[in-house]
Amino acid sequence: MRIAQVAPLSEAIPPKLYGGSERVVSWLTEELVSRGHDVTLFASGDSDTSATLVPGSKTGLRLAGINDHIASHLAMLSDVYHRRAEFDVIHFHTDLLQYPIFESVAPRTVTTMHGRLDLLDYRPVYEKFAYMPRVSISDSQRRPAPADTNWVGTIYHGFPADLYPFSATKGGYLAFLGRISPEKRPDRAIEIAIKASVPLKIAAKVDRVDQAYFEERIKPMLDHPLVEYIGEIDDRQKGAFLGGASALLFPIDWQEPFGLVMIEAMSAGTPVIAWRNGSVPEVVTEGKTGFIVESIEEAVAAVPKAAALNRRAVRRVFEDRFTVGRMADRYLAVYQGLHKTMTNGHAVTRKPQHAPNITMSEPSMP
Amino acid sequence: MRIAQVAPLSEAIPPKLYGGSERVVSWLTEELVSRGHDVTLFASGDSDTSATLVPGSKTGLRLAGINDHIASHLAMLSDVYHRRAEFDVIHFHTDLLQYPIFESVAPRTVTTMHGRLDLLDYRPVYEKFAYMPRVSISDSQRRPAPADTNWVGTIYHGFPADLYPFSATKGGYLAFLGRISPEKRPDRAIEIAIKASVPLKIAAKVDRVDQAYFEERIKPMLDHPLVEYIGEIDDRQKGAFLGGASALLFPIDWQEPFGLVMIEAMSAGTPVIAWRNGSVPEVVTEGKTGFIVESIEEAVAAVPKAAALNRRAVRRVFEDRFTVGRMADRYLAVYQGLHKTMTNGHAVTRKPQHAPNITMSEPSMP
Repeated sequence: MRIAQVAPLSEAIPPKLYGGSERVVSWLTEELVSRGHDVTLFASGDSDTSATLVPGSKTGLRLAGINDHIASHLAMLSDVYHRRAEFDVIHFHTDLLQYPIFESVAPRTVTTMHGRLDLLDYRPVYEKFAYMPRVSISDSQRRPAPADTNWVGTIYHGFPADLYPFSATKGGYLAFLGRISPEKRPDRAIEIAIKASVPLKIAAKVDRVDQAYFEERIKPMLDHPLVEYIGEIDDRQKGAFLGGASALLFPIDWQEPFGLVMIEAMSAGTPVIAWRNGSVPEVVTEGKTGFIVESIEEAVAAVPKAAALNRRAVRRVFEDRFTVGRMADRYLAVYQGLHKTMTNGHAVTRKPQHAPNITMSEPSMP
Repeated sequence: MRIAQVAPLSEAIPPKLYGGSERVVSWLTEELVSRGHDVTLFASGDSDTSATLVPGSKTGLRLAGINDHIASHLAMLSDVYHRRAEFDVIHFHTDLLQYPIFESVAPRTVTTMHGRLDLLDYRPVYEKFAYMPRVSISDSQRRPAPADTNWVGTIYHGFPADLYPFSATKGGYLAFLGRISPEKRPDRAIEIAIKASVPLKIAAKVDRVDQAYFEERIKPMLDHPLVEYIGEIDDRQKGAFLGGASALLFPIDWQEPFGLVMIEAMSAGTPVIAWRNGSVPEVVTEGKTGFIVESIEEAVAAVPKAAALNRRAVRRVFEDRFTVGRMADRYLAVYQGLHKTMTNGHAVTRKPQHAPNITMSEPSMP
């Protein structure tokens, strides 16, 4: 198929530093190319891809010091629109701006929703363009969306199976990985570790917006002999960090739309102890890849149980459900569904009263 | 003509409180309706207009506490696009988002640029959509824009002649009106008044972003017996405040694209002492409606000269150059130019290599 992937310009594809959705776009794009598809990637000029790269900006906008990213995206989206006839399907990862531009070819487009959908400010777009095809990254992510949203699938993220290789070692520590921020609840992680009398290693960055929270709330808790703060780590260090842990703590306090770090841990064979929030019950298989908890006490009780899980079985669930191959299979099925609808001539009207709703929900368990 | 006016949704039209461009949209819309044109105003639902109002949001977004205004604008612009066949011309006051959506009908659209054009973040849009018709609000505003921008006119703002009526009284004070902010240089105004030994009245609001500047830099200067700070005033108070002054001080330190307050003063017969910056040399007629200065000393010297100017002559220049009637005449000429180009079939291509450049520059002097 002739596929356009339209990435956000804020970071390179893959990102030079942090950037969850940008990594997903990269993994999907490379997998589609490796399967022989004709993929064009609209992304920042410093992106690294085996697809045909069409630069929408010289470099990733954030690291280039550009504060307002709208103009660059509008210019790129106009480029995509002018070239729309070259593609069987156009896959957006760009949040909001594409909807009014691509209404005339809506049935050949699909947007992956990478963020939370409960922000009222964005509601007018969710309602107005509800008929345009969308993919959710978990079923739970859909909850706040308008009832008539044209979901064409829930597709969980996936990445290459060899990215974080299986580690048979049962480490003697718990791991917290990601960002120090109030909704990630590193304070809960520390409390759990201390009550469980197990060492905790925290590998996390602190964004400027979270600096005060870090200084006032978290830093004073880092003095405990069981707690070690090792700062931000890169992809290579991540594998060893996760693989060496007996469990990942994911004590989140918000409606996480997916939570990449959970499947990163599973890839290494490391189980996950996670709060029942957002995508967690879909991603974690209770008693097999980890435990879903709702209190500090439940989390503390889960620590020895997680350490006793079969790490090979955790890895096998990852391989079944969360590889890039699996993700690409599902996106290709969505693309084919759109393409078929188009070539059958069903979806050529501008705004069908009853938009085709090609539902392809992921089986909740493998 | 069938005219769509597309307003920003951030404030009602006219705005409940502050909002320069929103007032201009209101004045223009009412004048076009009064001349018998079929005007549709896309704006917030709490707008007050004699045109046909199509609400793009329930109320103005800022006072409704909505932080991210993009989604509401995208939904409104989609509405406008679906109804594009109903209008001879579509006039945007909405900054950036309309360009990629309206490329297919670009020759029937015009955008008034209400802000500064020197921000690098917006450059990709200025370049990509340079062929789409634009109006500048001063010639000086155009300077940073790409050379191939399709300017179809410079049209100075204007408002109803009876809004701030002529006042023959020569007041005994200097006036500073607007915002307390570093680029407006209230500190210069205070220094000028003290050196000229003339009282200064400051009627200005302090935005949250300027609170520290106000507290640290300006408040300590307000103790001087010649200086009186009277806070924010409304439209009704403005007439008396400006009409009672011997001169308006406008000692700005930035490239002001237009500067409504200068013509508000002129409407009342009050001359303007302004720094040579941005639109100032186009708006102020040296020695007739005020004085253009480049230093505190020049400004101090201008104070008695301004007080000696003929206030009726100042008002006459306002009536010749800056009424809403004058502004509407020029916009209608632009609309007719677009319409003519369209009906002659010249401008039906998507992106002409040589876009029609209908230049209608304002004569610099009446």
